[in-house]
Amino acid sequence: VSGDPPFSKIALLGPGLLGGSLALALRERLREAHLRVWGRREEPVQAVWDRGIADVASTDLEAVVGGADLAVLCVPVDSMADLLKRMLPFLRPSAMVTDVGSVKRPVVESLFEGAVCLITPAEGTPAADIAAVTLFWEIVGCRVRRLSPAEHDDVVALVSHLPHLLAAALTQFAAERKPGALELCGNGFKDTTRVASGPPAMWTGILRENRRALHDSLEALIEKLSGIATLLDQFDDTKMMRLLEAAKAHRDRLKDSR
Amino acid sequence: VSGDPPFSKIALLGPGLLGGSLALALRERLREAHLRVWGRREEPVQAVWDRGIADVASTDLEAVVGGADLAVLCVPVDSMADLLKRMLPFLRPSAMVTDVGSVKRPVVESLFEGAVCLITPAEGTPAADIAAVTLFWEIVGCRVRRLSPAEHDDVVALVSHLPHLLAAALTQFAAERKPGALELCGNGFKDTTRVASGPPAMWTGILRENRRALHDSLEALIEKLSGIATLLDQFDDTKMMRLLEAAKAHRDRLKDSR
Repeated sequence: VSGDPPFSKIALLGPGLLGGSLALALRERLREAHLRVWGRREEPVQAVWDRGIADVASTDLEAVVGGADLAVLCVPVDSMADLLKRMLPFLRPSAMVTDVGSVKRPVVESLFEGAVCLITPAEGTPAADIAAVTLFWEIVGCRVRRLSPAEHDDVVALVSHLPHLLAAALTQFAAERKPGALELCGNGFKDTTRVASGPPAMWTGILRENRRALHDSLEALIEKLSGIATLLDQFDDTKMMRLLEAAKAHRDRLKDSR
Repeated sequence: VSGDPPFSKIALLGPGLLGGSLALALRERLREAHLRVWGRREEPVQAVWDRGIADVASTDLEAVVGGADLAVLCVPVDSMADLLKRMLPFLRPSAMVTDVGSVKRPVVESLFEGAVCLITPAEGTPAADIAAVTLFWEIVGCRVRRLSPAEHDDVVALVSHLPHLLAAALTQFAAERKPGALELCGNGFKDTTRVASGPPAMWTGILRENRRALHDSLEALIEKLSGIATLLDQFDDTKMMRLLEAAKAHRDRLKDSR
């Protein structure tokens, strides 16, 4: 990471885990930036203030957003559009807006260190703006990848939303189909279904936002599973082995962080 | 665990991770037992012998099985039937045979400590035999649950084999559908697909053995997923929330060992 700090007045909207962690990372890595944090409720805003991690912490949107050259939305996905609408009157025309999208859980000390950040410029987005936002996320430790909005939706449908739905479906299915079976499960089942413990309201919002790409992926996966059901019915060692080997080869390439 | 040791001459068939761990656990907890370990290949048998964890370690089936009052099959599921057939001439009529079935990976220091062990007596199995086998597995640290063979197959299809197939299918599906997408995945995807890294040959054997129960479960799950696809298409917050909440409630009841 090099070059001038891309932004000097940064508004973080949402004082929760993500917004708070981002404020901490920025405090450390962009010391000269003026950090403002907005929250809907008094209590978490007060907590941010008490910990001294922002120059301004307020429930007043104008006080936080006014004059900022970057605003980062750190609220649940399904509150973003509303919040953005309310912010618009106070935003400088040159201000840039980015968001933490569907970051879902703390992994390492800094939430953002080493995380993949997908940025999705529209067709008309100026190159300088892309560079500035890229630099911002790199400063807090992210590996930035650029995708079109449609590609982004397809990718997160595949690697995040579909796994979540599968985990939820499998958990509920197993519990309903054979009461008591879950008590007999081992670590394989626990791994496969771990994400199903995520907050239902947040996930309903995420799944709703990406329902189209997700629907297409799920339909295609169902087709693949139907093929596997046929393979089980007319069991063929070579074909099953080939499926498991291909999956293993792909999975082995992913590095486990734990 | 109380009562007399249920067996005094114990043959462990298969000197791998499971057989070896079992020998170690028995050495510690059933000191007076005469332990014999059989293996197909010289090398691992020699390793067992060198570590002093068995009284007999041999590639000669008769030397290990002859006179034993318990034989524990610790070979891959798809080698069990063959091995059993070869053992029969040497087995005492009163000898009992049990197996490690589809135990799949080390979790804690002792592989068996705290693990759920499913025993599946047939209709005619004498109560005393059930008690002896139960006591044996309790001695090495297992929590023993009794199921009919059909129930056992249904349960492991649900909590082990189906999750494995789903993880493999999802991994291969995501990799094929959008090359490069996997590199952008986070921990949710890694958790959900972790078991897909398991050994393909072993898993082909496991899935083949239980293909009938597994096929039925997969067909029913596909139906559930089709319902979810419809729900995505005609998105309904309340219904999606209800699904995610039910899944979360079930998942939250499982204790994570890590």
